[in-house]
Amino acid sequence: MAKWYLGEGEQSDVVISTRIRLARNLKQYPFPARLDTKSRLAVNEVIRKAVPASAGLRYIEMKTLTQAQIVAFAEKHVISPEFASSADGRALLLSADEELSVMLNEEDHIRLQVMLPGLALEQAYDTADKLDTAINEQVEYAFDERLGYLTQCPTNLGTGMRASVMLHLPALAATNRIGALGSTVSKLGLTIRGAYGEGTAPMGDLYQVSNQVTLGISEKAAMENLKTIVLQIAAQERAARTEMLKTTETQDLVYRAYGILKSARLLDTREFMELISRVRFGAVGGLLPLDAKVPNALMIAMQPANLNARAGKNLSARERDELRAKLVREAL
Amino acid sequence: MAKWYLGEGEQSDVVISTRIRLARNLKQYPFPARLDTKSRLAVNEVIRKAVPASAGLRYIEMKTLTQAQIVAFAEKHVISPEFASSADGRALLLSADEELSVMLNEEDHIRLQVMLPGLALEQAYDTADKLDTAINEQVEYAFDERLGYLTQCPTNLGTGMRASVMLHLPALAATNRIGALGSTVSKLGLTIRGAYGEGTAPMGDLYQVSNQVTLGISEKAAMENLKTIVLQIAAQERAARTEMLKTTETQDLVYRAYGILKSARLLDTREFMELISRVRFGAVGGLLPLDAKVPNALMIAMQPANLNARAGKNLSARERDELRAKLVREAL
Repeated sequence: MAKWYLGEGEQSDVVISTRIRLARNLKQYPFPARLDTKSRLAVNEVIRKAVPASAGLRYIEMKTLTQAQIVAFAEKHVISPEFASSADGRALLLSADEELSVMLNEEDHIRLQVMLPGLALEQAYDTADKLDTAINEQVEYAFDERLGYLTQCPTNLGTGMRASVMLHLPALAATNRIGALGSTVSKLGLTIRGAYGEGTAPMGDLYQVSNQVTLGISEKAAMENLKTIVLQIAAQERAARTEMLKTTETQDLVYRAYGILKSARLLDTREFMELISRVRFGAVGGLLPLDAKVPNALMIAMQPANLNARAGKNLSARERDELRAKLVREAL
Repeated sequence: MAKWYLGEGEQSDVVISTRIRLARNLKQYPFPARLDTKSRLAVNEVIRKAVPASAGLRYIEMKTLTQAQIVAFAEKHVISPEFASSADGRALLLSADEELSVMLNEEDHIRLQVMLPGLALEQAYDTADKLDTAINEQVEYAFDERLGYLTQCPTNLGTGMRASVMLHLPALAATNRIGALGSTVSKLGLTIRGAYGEGTAPMGDLYQVSNQVTLGISEKAAMENLKTIVLQIAAQERAARTEMLKTTETQDLVYRAYGILKSARLLDTREFMELISRVRFGAVGGLLPLDAKVPNALMIAMQPANLNARAGKNLSARERDELRAKLVREAL
């Protein structure tokens, strides 16, 4: 079954994907941090049974996966880096297209997540809400009339909803406007950060814009808020791209990136992400005869653990750079 | 008529070209440095008349050329940088294929030069010697029984012959062995230096090996000497190439260089020379589906003044980088 990230959605020149994540906890159990393995497994069973068979989710105990498979899921944003850090008493419910996933015993008992290509907040929320409602018919959530959904971390209290949109911003990044964008969005209760390569410079010009506030605001209002700012950022990015594409310097960078990716024999992650970002920019801008879905898919598939998972073994960095170069040549 | 540098000769995987240059002076005139313009023109006329029509040489007064045309000749090594620096009372005799040229009133009255592709010392010398003899039948050279041909600079006294071979040494350069080579050849009365980009790092891994000694040695012995060392250097270069070509790192560099040259929109001289050197290396080594004559010709045609001459006007550096990128894309 085709994975969600091979598809294309609204505003796809700038918006790579949309993610809705709901944090929920069972009323009759303490938060996961205070549960031993046995109790966690009991929680998993309760939730597993509460999920309707019609949802078509596969149940995966995390301890049955290799480290490469786990990190590969994190690279695809199917699971959180926190969830990938330990397998103890944790499980994952996952749809075949990887659009819908439920992390069990992450920070909360339930982290229900829907990912879709392009800008699709309402659609993603509807899917998440439907499954959330179905589960809630079977189990009682920890819920407070005044505070809303109770979560381990107070920053999730209220709706327990985090809506994120992943954006490709090569032109705003090249013109050093991401910093200013950060100040603006934070005033609106949102945050922007690199989607890959936290701690160092963001890789591939991929940025994630998310709502920060979950308390005292409805899901709908939070999403409206996010959607408005995303559309504004996308418009700015488009204007900056149009300016940049006029210059021979930009064309030079785009065509060189394409030329290198089509010919290199060794490609490390950081260089690959830098070049594929330029290629995606050039493809969307009409310079290159390439569907933007190709760089989208490569940005995920060429991550280190995804390559290891594909090879079925832990490759050395050097072997990975060689395999990455080979697969990229074939794809382009 | 096809230019000599579009051809291919012996040892052409390593040897780009061979040049023989004879320095001669007319007995009845002082050296050019001591002549005024009028006397120089008189010297030009004497020599022009002494050159047989059968040689098919075009007579060009340097002052009739544009600066771009003059520097373009220097970039092709048809004339010396010194000759290009002033047009006053100077003229050039040149064959249609640019193989044979005679600089009039350079440092000496006559600088007769033959260039051929590949390693062709004897053949180049024969051609030079034939024209030299023909001229000498018409005019009397400044010649001393003990010293040989008299030249303005004492370093040319004796045979007045400078034999040079231009080598492409990407593998010896990459493995930092040019320095050691320099020490070795200097002990044998030879010298090695970058063929382009003097003063800075040599460009394109092109090196010129020449005889230094002209006094007390016959032309034949000097050429034998040079040929022996050139064959040794070529053998070393081939061995180093074979080793390098085995590594993925080298293949990566070669294919990337090819990819960039086929796609860049801006290329400055230095980057172009670095990349075309790798491409020539890859072409000769069988990695790239390309005849080595293509990079050979580009290395000359993409020099700044050659581009200006081709465009028929003085391009800005930026315009030149754009034109260079365009022509290189088309050629590859």
